[in-house]
Amino acid sequence: MLEKRKFHSKTRRNVCIVVQLSPKQSGRIRKMGSPTATAPWKQLLLDALRSNSSLKHSSFFQLATVGSNGRPANRTVVFRGFQEGSDKIQIHTDSRSRKIEELKHNPLAEICWYFTDSWEQFRISGIVEMIDHSNPDSLKLQQREKAWHACSVKSRLQYLGPTPGLPYIGEHLTDENSLDSSTSPVDSFCLLIMDPDQVDYLNLKSNQRMTFTSTQSDSQEKCWALERINP
Amino acid sequence: MLEKRKFHSKTRRNVCIVVQLSPKQSGRIRKMGSPTATAPWKQLLLDALRSNSSLKHSSFFQLATVGSNGRPANRTVVFRGFQEGSDKIQIHTDSRSRKIEELKHNPLAEICWYFTDSWEQFRISGIVEMIDHSNPDSLKLQQREKAWHACSVKSRLQYLGPTPGLPYIGEHLTDENSLDSSTSPVDSFCLLIMDPDQVDYLNLKSNQRMTFTSTQSDSQEKCWALERINP
Repeated sequence: MLEKRKFHSKTRRNVCIVVQLSPKQSGRIRKMGSPTATAPWKQLLLDALRSNSSLKHSSFFQLATVGSNGRPANRTVVFRGFQEGSDKIQIHTDSRSRKIEELKHNPLAEICWYFTDSWEQFRISGIVEMIDHSNPDSLKLQQREKAWHACSVKSRLQYLGPTPGLPYIGEHLTDENSLDSSTSPVDSFCLLIMDPDQVDYLNLKSNQRMTFTSTQSDSQEKCWALERINP
Repeated sequence: MLEKRKFHSKTRRNVCIVVQLSPKQSGRIRKMGSPTATAPWKQLLLDALRSNSSLKHSSFFQLATVGSNGRPANRTVVFRGFQEGSDKIQIHTDSRSRKIEELKHNPLAEICWYFTDSWEQFRISGIVEMIDHSNPDSLKLQQREKAWHACSVKSRLQYLGPTPGLPYIGEHLTDENSLDSSTSPVDSFCLLIMDPDQVDYLNLKSNQRMTFTSTQSDSQEKCWALERINP
């Protein structure tokens, strides 16, 4: 029989957690039910990032979307951190890339993030918001500007190149000096923000698997229901 | 201006290749247009597997599918080799897993395979065939049996466990002796075979990207059109 527990955080950034526990479940899951401002899967993810930090590729994950033709699409992208004070995941992309068309058609995406050192997998599913230069919200444009300035000059130069996916017609040379540190984001720079609503966590070393499902409570706080499932 | 070349293989396993070249393109792409029985992207993939072979995780990739609700799904799976004499990719899975429902609804999938040592990415898209115990084709059942016997006993034991994704109700112990080497595949063992029709190859070291698109020619041989595109 399952127990249910409900915790409400008293902090500014509220997170409520509903834990479904079977009598045999480990202490680790119980602990995650304690009041906290951090989504419980986010803490696991931060731990995984820390324990795999020696590997450059631990900040890469695969993002799946659906094309207007119903075909799934899947590519490697770089984790650009969480949006401040939230569990929303930031990604940078080129506004001219095919994933933008796909997300306009269907904003749902699933991240698959496998940590090769700790043998942990996070499948993070949610809606992706696109913030490009035409966004009417000045606050969102500020977020985009901040993301742009957090990039290295080398990363920024990519957005000055030819349209990704179009036929190659020869080498394109970009002048590094055309982008000094004060330059505003170029039009092709787009900030993607995924708001997760489902997370599936698998640990291949301990052979444990858990799902985290978000629901919005009456008080507008985000609630996460945890359940241990068969791997 | 683009040149076009067409090559026809004289070998038993025919592959024809159409190469679209711009004058500035590298010798590497030209070479891939020479007659061969191997799909041109397959040779690149075999090279990547070889140059990343010291890493256990180089045989893992991410498989994206689409759920009946239109949501993309994405998970890490293990590469189980090519089907003999072809460019079809083999994967093993549990018939009770959610990806089976998804593939029954929409058999299209996209693999994203990132090689962490050589910085190469293969996005391989195609239709996935499911071969489970109920398959009426005796030849396909033989393929499934062969795949089962190629697995380690530890891998096979997974298929005797409780249904993946259902609530965990305590530890499930499986007797290793219940599976001796002669035992036939259990009902939950399913062989997936992806038949690729599009491959997008990206090399982050050389900053080169190519697409390979398959078309079936009149003579039923598989044709691959190559094009270099902007990364």
